[in-house]
Formats: sequence, C-alpha cells, structure tokens
Amino acid sequence: MQAPVTPVEVSRSGKGPIERAEDLLVTEEPLEIRLDHGPVDDRREDRITVTMRTPGDDRELAIGFLLSEGILSGTDDIIRVEHCQQVKPEEMGNVVRVSLKPEVQVDTARWQRNFYVSSSCGVCGKGSLEAVRNLCPVKQLHPPTITRAVLLELPRRMREAQVVFQHTGGIHAAALFDPAGKLLLLHEDVGRHNAVDKVIGAAQLADLPLVDRLLLVSGRAGFELVQKCVMAGIPAMAAVGAPSSLAVQLAKDNLLLLIGFLRDDRFNVYSGDPALIA
Amino acid sequence: MQAPVTPVEVSRSGKGPIERAEDLLVTEEPLEIRLDHGPVDDRREDRITVTMRTPGDDRELAIGFLLSEGILSGTDDIIRVEHCQQVKPEEMGNVVRVSLKPEVQVDTARWQRNFYVSSSCGVCGKGSLEAVRNLCPVKQLHPPTITRAVLLELPRRMREAQVVFQHTGGIHAAALFDPAGKLLLLHEDVGRHNAVDKVIGAAQLADLPLVDRLLLVSGRAGFELVQKCVMAGIPAMAAVGAPSSLAVQLAKDNLLLLIGFLRDDRFNVYSGDPALIA
Repeated sequence: MQAPVTPVEVSRSGKGPIERAEDLLVTEEPLEIRLDHGPVDDRREDRITVTMRTPGDDRELAIGFLLSEGILSGTDDIIRVEHCQQVKPEEMGNVVRVSLKPEVQVDTARWQRNFYVSSSCGVCGKGSLEAVRNLCPVKQLHPPTITRAVLLELPRRMREAQVVFQHTGGIHAAALFDPAGKLLLLHEDVGRHNAVDKVIGAAQLADLPLVDRLLLVSGRAGFELVQKCVMAGIPAMAAVGAPSSLAVQLAKDNLLLLIGFLRDDRFNVYSGDPALIA
Repeated sequence: MQAPVTPVEVSRSGKGPIERAEDLLVTEEPLEIRLDHGPVDDRREDRITVTMRTPGDDRELAIGFLLSEGILSGTDDIIRVEHCQQVKPEEMGNVVRVSLKPEVQVDTARWQRNFYVSSSCGVCGKGSLEAVRNLCPVKQLHPPTITRAVLLELPRRMREAQVVFQHTGGIHAAALFDPAGKLLLLHEDVGRHNAVDKVIGAAQLADLPLVDRLLLVSGRAGFELVQKCVMAGIPAMAAVGAPSSLAVQLAKDNLLLLIGFLRDDRFNVYSGDPALIA
C-alpha cells in the first residue's frame, strides 16, 4: 500500500539563500480498473481505464467510477472488489479488479465506444499501466540559467496577461518565457493540459524554438504537464502550485528543471540544479 | 466562433440579501480532433480524441496535442489545419481536422492502444461529440433546502478534515454533507474527478442515500463533476471556485442546485432556486 504523501528533498528559496529541505508531495500513481464479468463458463476480464490517482480508497474509486460512468447501476451486482495480486512488482497495488455476479450483463458498448484512447490529459483512458509508463522517451534536457529576480516576476507577468481570468476567475493559463523573463506566448483554457497544448502548438506554428524556454502554469504540476514539456523539448517548468510525486520523478528522469509553489516571493526547486537560478 | 466567456444570470449572496446579477463564465465546449491521412488513393479520417476546452486557438490546441502525444513530430508533415464545415449545426466550430501530406506515415498504434475509451474525467478520450452529449440521461433532481449560515461553514469544515492537503498543499477534495451541514464523507485525490468518484463509491459501499445531500468540491466546477453528481443522483453541488458554462448548462437541465465561489462569506447560485437557501 502506497502512502498518499511522498517525502522528497527540495531546494527552498525564501527571503534568505536557497536551502535544502524535506518536503511532502501528494502521491500520484496510475490505477488500472479491471472488470471481471460474464457467465461461469465464459468469464472475461476487461481493462476499463487507467486514471492518475492518489493511492488510498482504491476500491471506492473503482466503484464510484463504474457508477458515475453508467457501467454499473449499483453495488448489488458486485461479488468482490480487490487489488490484483497477479501483476508485475511495479504494478502491485495499482490494479483493482471488480468482479460481477455471473448473471449480470454489462453493456460493454458503454466503454467500448470506439478504438481510440489517447486523451488530452495524456493518461486518462489509457488501457494499461505499461502504456502510461512508456509514454515518454527519456531525454537529456538542458535547462537555461535564470535569475531569482526574473523568476519571481513571472507569475505577475502571466496574471496581467490573462484576459479571460480577469473576467471569470475560473481558468488555467500556461505561459512561455525566455530566460530573461520576456513573455513569448500565453494561452488560457478551462483545462490546464489544453492551455499547455495550445502553447506548444502555437510555438510550432510560429517556428519558435523551445530549447531554452521556461513554461509557467497557473495551477499544480501533475505528471501529464511535465510529460507534455518533455515531449515538446521544453527544458524548464514552473508551477504556481504544488507538483505531484510522479511529476517530480519524470522531471528528474529527463533532467527537467521543475519549480513549484512559485508565488509570494518564494519557490521550491524539485528537480534540476538549483545553481541554474542565479 | 464561440467566445471564451459566456454571460449568465446568477443569484449573488454577499453581506446583504441575495441579488440577481450578470456573471461571466469561462466557456467549456468539447473539441473533437480528427486526423486526415494516408496516400492519395486511400485517404482516411480518424477521430483521435475529444477534449473539453475553452474555444479559441483550436488549431494550436490540435497541433500541440498531436505533438505532445507523439503522434506527430513536427509541423512539416501537415498540409492544413481547419475547422470542419461538414458537421451538424451544434458541432460547428467544435471539430478540427488536421490533414497530413500523402507520403506521411502515422503510427496509428500510438493512439489505438486498445478498445476502451471511458476515462476517469468522464470525457477525455471519448471518440465523438455525440458520445459526450449523450453521457447523461436527463434527471429531475430535488435539492434539499439549506441555510445560508450552514452553507458558509462548509468550506472550513472540509478544509479542517483534509489531512493530505495540510501536508502537501497540492490536492483536491470532495466532501458529502447533509442539509444540516454534517460532514458524512471526505476524500482527497490529486485528480478532482477521482475525489468525487471516491465519495460516490464510498457512499454506495456504506449504503448511504445520496438523495438529499450536497457535494462540496475544493476547486472549480467543470462539466465532468456535475455529470458525476447527476449520474449518482446527488441533487446539490457547491464549489469553492468557478463553474464552467457547460457545467451550469448541465446543472440546469437536471434541476441540480449549483453553487460557485463558496468562500469568504459569499457565494453565487448558478442553477436551482435560490429560495432553497433559507
């Protein structure tokens, strides 16, 4: 059983010099939900979805998911809900099987709506844990150096450019900066992953190189946002909010400079060399 | 072309009596991304994904998505990117087609990873706009009455019960309350949709009726969270943050009481009878 929080070493910048400290991250791990169903002589096990979740109450999550997706109508149909034991060591605790009574018919068309599975958040709907883990080729990114003063300015510059946020208070933003703190691109969207995709797409259309840029996101830094930076070759990412455990892991694997809690004149460096912030 | 913000009539509760006012919501609409590819004599058009997004820069979004998913490696392969015109009137502006040069081979296995498409956020990866629109059967929910004093207390009660948030500052919560403000269930997760699914699943496992409950969520109220409430039969939902345009629409269709910006002794009623708040 994994813990819902993961300890991590972090470089903390506040009023004084950067200090090493221990920080607690929310744990993010994929959960695969399987449905075991069919008559006694013709049982089948279908992989329904993979969701990035915080470990804990996985049985509740699996049942709630099946109910709110309309695949089940209640718990009367269920024989048992348990973590699968016949999985690879690294998948242990991350696969839940929901077994239905033999007489229960499920409407498989409810989740087999078509043949596609890639999704905008990069992980939702992916049908196996392996697919999630193999999403990203490992890269050796080379983040630029950036001054502390410039870094602390970025959230204000992004916020001032956020037209939709000023009207609604309910939107995410992603902004691309050069190492001198110049705002190159800004996009807003109801989905944080869409805001990042819009920046990446706009950079491509404008032939903007991404090799020494920093991407700032308005919310938290989850796995899928770091994944998008890695895929696009953006070597540095900062978030106004907290990163997740898996986001930090992926950033470290790819040498991406990952900064969290960039607000109120402070920030934490979760991955990459703190000396890059001069 | 839809606007990124949508005006809406709202009942606003601050220091004085509830007032009618106009509010601006961030627009949330599904975007379907299609890929037109193959040799001249054997072209095919594949539906890659549907994502809930804020209209605007849809071409950038489509390209950024294809790049960050690894389906394309650059824009050199692209002939054109455009909104499809041969769609139903209600889909106009919500379908983007990316056309590739005839000689470009795409790795269809990259998105045809398996046959499942339902996802934890309820919409990601769904392969057609119609599938998104048909997610929910329309219900006639009957929200309970609740006093203003109780309502204003709920965010504090939820926050105090949030164990993981206190340690990490980076997690979403969903809490189920009765009309007297008693906290019945609370779950935290890195994904807000997972926190809601955990509450729904836990209520089912504990045989807790949902018929006169209110669900409070820590962040914003998007379409998929309202959808989960409707599917589970929870008649009232409040969010600490802003709702989206489609969330309000879905709430109205199902007579769900939807409250937004519940914080700092104020809130807005976006759907349902404000008289329910005594």
